[in-house]
Amino acid sequence: MADIVEVRNKQVIFKDYINGYATGSDMVVTSDATIRLELPKNDDSLILTKNIYLSCDPYMRNRMNRTMEGNYIDSFTPGSPIVGYGVSRVLESSHPKFKKGDLIWGLVGWEEYSLIKDTRTFIKIQVTDVPLSCYTGILGMTGLTAYVGFHEICSPKKGETVFVSSASGAVGQIVGQLAKLFGCYVVGSAGSKAKVDLLKNKFGFDDAFNYKEEQDLNAALKRYFPNGIDMYFDNVGGKMLDEVLRNMRVHGRIAACGMISQYNLDKPQGNYNLLMLIMKRIRMEGFLVFDYYHSYPKFLEMILPLIHEGKITYVEDIVIGLENAPAALIGLFNGTNVGKQVVAITNE
Amino acid sequence: MADIVEVRNKQVIFKDYINGYATGSDMVVTSDATIRLELPKNDDSLILTKNIYLSCDPYMRNRMNRTMEGNYIDSFTPGSPIVGYGVSRVLESSHPKFKKGDLIWGLVGWEEYSLIKDTRTFIKIQVTDVPLSCYTGILGMTGLTAYVGFHEICSPKKGETVFVSSASGAVGQIVGQLAKLFGCYVVGSAGSKAKVDLLKNKFGFDDAFNYKEEQDLNAALKRYFPNGIDMYFDNVGGKMLDEVLRNMRVHGRIAACGMISQYNLDKPQGNYNLLMLIMKRIRMEGFLVFDYYHSYPKFLEMILPLIHEGKITYVEDIVIGLENAPAALIGLFNGTNVGKQVVAITNE
Repeated sequence: MADIVEVRNKQVIFKDYINGYATGSDMVVTSDATIRLELPKNDDSLILTKNIYLSCDPYMRNRMNRTMEGNYIDSFTPGSPIVGYGVSRVLESSHPKFKKGDLIWGLVGWEEYSLIKDTRTFIKIQVTDVPLSCYTGILGMTGLTAYVGFHEICSPKKGETVFVSSASGAVGQIVGQLAKLFGCYVVGSAGSKAKVDLLKNKFGFDDAFNYKEEQDLNAALKRYFPNGIDMYFDNVGGKMLDEVLRNMRVHGRIAACGMISQYNLDKPQGNYNLLMLIMKRIRMEGFLVFDYYHSYPKFLEMILPLIHEGKITYVEDIVIGLENAPAALIGLFNGTNVGKQVVAITNE
Repeated sequence: MADIVEVRNKQVIFKDYINGYATGSDMVVTSDATIRLELPKNDDSLILTKNIYLSCDPYMRNRMNRTMEGNYIDSFTPGSPIVGYGVSRVLESSHPKFKKGDLIWGLVGWEEYSLIKDTRTFIKIQVTDVPLSCYTGILGMTGLTAYVGFHEICSPKKGETVFVSSASGAVGQIVGQLAKLFGCYVVGSAGSKAKVDLLKNKFGFDDAFNYKEEQDLNAALKRYFPNGIDMYFDNVGGKMLDEVLRNMRVHGRIAACGMISQYNLDKPQGNYNLLMLIMKRIRMEGFLVFDYYHSYPKFLEMILPLIHEGKITYVEDIVIGLENAPAALIGLFNGTNVGKQVVAITNE
């Protein structure tokens, strides 16, 4: 037993529930904790992980609320680490499904090492000839979200028009490319010139615009969609959703994936154009990727060849070190990230 | 030719486009017009009708706007009669589909006689052992709306919970009964004690409440649906929709049929709980009965036996005389009608 070491376990601790805008000071990075690198005895369903990459996702803001009516996921626990999707290596396992050395992805604490008691969210990584960080994104929940939202919720037809908000973000960039590959006309909105360039020149969107530079979103949408929008992949909600509703075509579909424009508001802004749902016979459907784990194998089968053949591009914004994790998460809400925001715990 | 008479044609004239609340003085009843009871020559697609019953429907308010973005139907023409669904008898026909004496329903002017140039909305009435006024309602667009909205848009499952707003209205009363016949638990809201009594004692809703007496709609909905709402048939929009969104169950469906609470407002009230669409993975779908004419024969096949066997009840609020038509239409927005509002042009 002499070789069992107790090591430092640096963590990002969630301080307390918040209202309004999240800031970096709502989390604290500490090196106070230690962890013994062995499994407790008498439990055959545990794994001990060394965490490699952490995913920063907009939905995590909702877990910072004390309670949220209708919330689909528990709030974070004050005094405990932030929890999110990550990529880890199994150091020890008493669980039959996982063995020492396995690479896995699933929900982990924002810390160097985790003792995992509930392994239900973990999937073993089989394909490793891609960057491992991809399993926080295009090959993880992010990619599956884009796939499900576009192919299953939007019910696309070739030649239809697609609008994606927050289009250079983790999900948006994949949605746009899937829609192009499917044969749709795709326009995205983003919040900076650099992101718009990325959409047009790297992700192959037919067109893109910077919503912050548009005085009149309605006019902007009419410019890019003179004949209207068949499908809207909504990552932002709020004012943009309202203006899109005015520009939808008859029998359009809206995949409601996220409403990042509203997450940091004490009171939502309100939507004023829901009557358009009736006038234009629009189907608007909210979805959560958690309901679609069963589609993951089918999704991988579709997406891996596209990645290997270079037919799909994926941009990550990787910061190194848990010290930088709080700012990376907050950055999502200020739009400072370009592409999928990832934290690499070490630069190994 | 001496037997061709020119007769008085009393009409309800739409005065001019309006904003805000519609009032009786937005229409004028006049006996100034006359009509020759013969068909113009050289046109083989005309019918001349004597109009019997007129339907008052909430959507007609939208036709009083000058223009309405996304509107699915033209505005009324100032100086011309109001147009709506009605039941008529064919006096003369040069159209091969209709012959003298036929009873028909479709879009007619609010006037005693109409010369119909566009017969596309007209359907010949085959079954006449029911009150003819039913073809403005349960056997017309109203019934088809209820049928399509419940059976096709809501995708019901036996045992699920259903909430219907404006439930004693023309569409709501049928939706509630279809849902009960299907095996659902059904609660309705309405705006008076008399209507609530009707819902519980005549239409067989499991329960009902007067929304005007509830200080807190959220609390009211929680009282009737402690485990949440699977399906919401929305006739009102606005505040009620917002509170329903808070009370929907996961994977719920909302059939967006009408938003009567908003039609007379210069600016809609706003909806603040759309995030629930995502958190609860709700499908909200707007629909218009005009898209479902093809379902009418199937619908009749289902509904006629129910009517003949007394398994479905239908309440109409009939006023007599075109003089009373403007007040009847306006009454819809004040909730003065009980059940389907119909105007009988004569008391023959």
